[in-house]
Amino acid sequence: MQEISTIPQLNINLNNVKDNYQFLKSISFGAKTAAVVKDDAYGIGAREVVKLLSKEGCDTFFIAHATEAIDIRDIVPNATIYVLNGIGQGTIDIFKKYNLTPVISNPTALKFWNDSKIPNIKPAIQIDTGLNRLGFSLQQIKDISEEARSNFSLVMSHLSCGDAIGHFMNTHQLENFQKVLTYFPNIPASLSASDGAMLGKEFTFDMVRLGAALYGINTAPYRQNQVKSVVELKAPILQIKDLPIGEFVGYGASYRAHSESKIAIISIGYGDGIFRSLSNTGRVWIGDYEAKILGRVSMDMITIDVTNIPEDILISNNYATLLNDKYTLDNMANDAGTIGYEILSRIGKGQRYVKNYKQG
Amino acid sequence: MQEISTIPQLNINLNNVKDNYQFLKSISFGAKTAAVVKDDAYGIGAREVVKLLSKEGCDTFFIAHATEAIDIRDIVPNATIYVLNGIGQGTIDIFKKYNLTPVISNPTALKFWNDSKIPNIKPAIQIDTGLNRLGFSLQQIKDISEEARSNFSLVMSHLSCGDAIGHFMNTHQLENFQKVLTYFPNIPASLSASDGAMLGKEFTFDMVRLGAALYGINTAPYRQNQVKSVVELKAPILQIKDLPIGEFVGYGASYRAHSESKIAIISIGYGDGIFRSLSNTGRVWIGDYEAKILGRVSMDMITIDVTNIPEDILISNNYATLLNDKYTLDNMANDAGTIGYEILSRIGKGQRYVKNYKQG
Repeated sequence: MQEISTIPQLNINLNNVKDNYQFLKSISFGAKTAAVVKDDAYGIGAREVVKLLSKEGCDTFFIAHATEAIDIRDIVPNATIYVLNGIGQGTIDIFKKYNLTPVISNPTALKFWNDSKIPNIKPAIQIDTGLNRLGFSLQQIKDISEEARSNFSLVMSHLSCGDAIGHFMNTHQLENFQKVLTYFPNIPASLSASDGAMLGKEFTFDMVRLGAALYGINTAPYRQNQVKSVVELKAPILQIKDLPIGEFVGYGASYRAHSESKIAIISIGYGDGIFRSLSNTGRVWIGDYEAKILGRVSMDMITIDVTNIPEDILISNNYATLLNDKYTLDNMANDAGTIGYEILSRIGKGQRYVKNYKQG
Repeated sequence: MQEISTIPQLNINLNNVKDNYQFLKSISFGAKTAAVVKDDAYGIGAREVVKLLSKEGCDTFFIAHATEAIDIRDIVPNATIYVLNGIGQGTIDIFKKYNLTPVISNPTALKFWNDSKIPNIKPAIQIDTGLNRLGFSLQQIKDISEEARSNFSLVMSHLSCGDAIGHFMNTHQLENFQKVLTYFPNIPASLSASDGAMLGKEFTFDMVRLGAALYGINTAPYRQNQVKSVVELKAPILQIKDLPIGEFVGYGASYRAHSESKIAIISIGYGDGIFRSLSNTGRVWIGDYEAKILGRVSMDMITIDVTNIPEDILISNNYATLLNDKYTLDNMANDAGTIGYEILSRIGKGQRYVKNYKQG
């Protein structure tokens, strides 16, 4: 090691977020392209993403909780910010102060909204077309007066299986949504997030709500990823040592050396969002060489097998790479037993990274 | 629902952290009780914990990265703050500015430390007694001059299986550590974290490094938890609805209703640190009633089965409870396929909670 470092690095390529936005726009058949920036833009950083995309002409954003607007409203004073999890007693003042637009998902919420008498805001209405999460049922729509139905800015629903082309649920939800729209004849409609937007023209309607694909996640796993990878993650190598045969590695002594090995300890762990389920299963990269994770991932350190990595490669690299454009969020998710969304959400919350944004 | 709310709540009982500290002190056979506050005190909040424990007489703290000291040094200007992942070129200025003490874990790091010529600080030395993570080997100790060996403030090692009473690794590491100490005759010694501290007198030496058990995690799972639970987690119920037979729930349509059911959608998800591995497996509580998680945990919402919960209980509770003193971090970890440490580390990083600290 030429130089000793200890802090892991998270590099975020905003140019690729921009390219992904423009690519997704190009395949959205003229639908408005809104950006979903909830959960700190899935971990990428909501302020940076909103700043970037507003320059690209994006004027509509979705968050889950009203409080998430506090971080971004000043950047886009005139944009529409929809709040997916709705409005409640505890957040009504934030809605007023930050000029937010609720997504109304059930009759109780609609009554609360009407009673709140916030002027000049037309909420969205969420319809449950088969996901069985938030949303009005088709029956409940009929109980809303025709006049009240004309008072929404958006009628929306959400697909359960948009990542699976040809899934029967997509057809089922699409048909239900088309029935819904007959009750909202002049209201803009939105059915699809990133995954649904890639299913083709019949799914794009007036607006698509782009989230995961903006951030490099493959939301259409039935084919090669169409978007660019956004995150690179590196952790310093703290120590390299020989592991004699028969020795154990890490907590619970869950790995035992079957042959003379060489190990490295890298400065990152589940405290930084690296899944503990990668214990004895995951891998990292030194240059182009794969190094398997040995033993359990601990809070601040991971031990890796560098036995087969040439000495000059080990000497010239001070860092192990955990994510890049070859080993992506989706690849790591596959090794960890989850999805890229959860990986990114975790890593994005790491408080100990040197975080670099690449742009321009 | 009497009132609509949308934001999840994380309640942290600092009184119990204090009680846990005093309990652990009482069973530490007079050893100094240092507090491990890395990873934002495992998610509890490093500033709050350091403030609290310094009043209890704790004057030694451990963090993983030098940068973690920035958050706490002003609270304890005179305390010793050890940095477990060591000192590097990129953090040397932080060590100087915040008066930090590195843990030196290998010959390269020792040379770097000596070359840095930081005055008035005596580092700790980490020895690898069998964990095969960071640390000098027994052979490498012998290469350090006797004079240099007398210049450390602490000689430490770390157990791999301290949570398993009677594990052969504990005896093995204890014997190795005793050999190590013959090379450091007058230096205070520390072998155990919370788990090792509970293994009995021969494991406590001069200092124990208390982490997980302070925060309510059962680090001695071979017996009932000896420490008090610290976190309570609640999520608002956003909507309750009927689920007709044959309907699917959530992404991937992974759950299907076999009978007429009633479901509730709660305002929390993996974006708040709730493991996606709890999909179709985990449970939450409405009052004293268990409600199973149906379908996949999504980023901001979870669907639960409330079919068997009496109407009056559903009406009088606006929140579902995800963690409390009956269903603890360890219970949730068991359902999620991990350990309480990782659960707490995740939840503690949630940026969308209303976070309340109870104290006094």
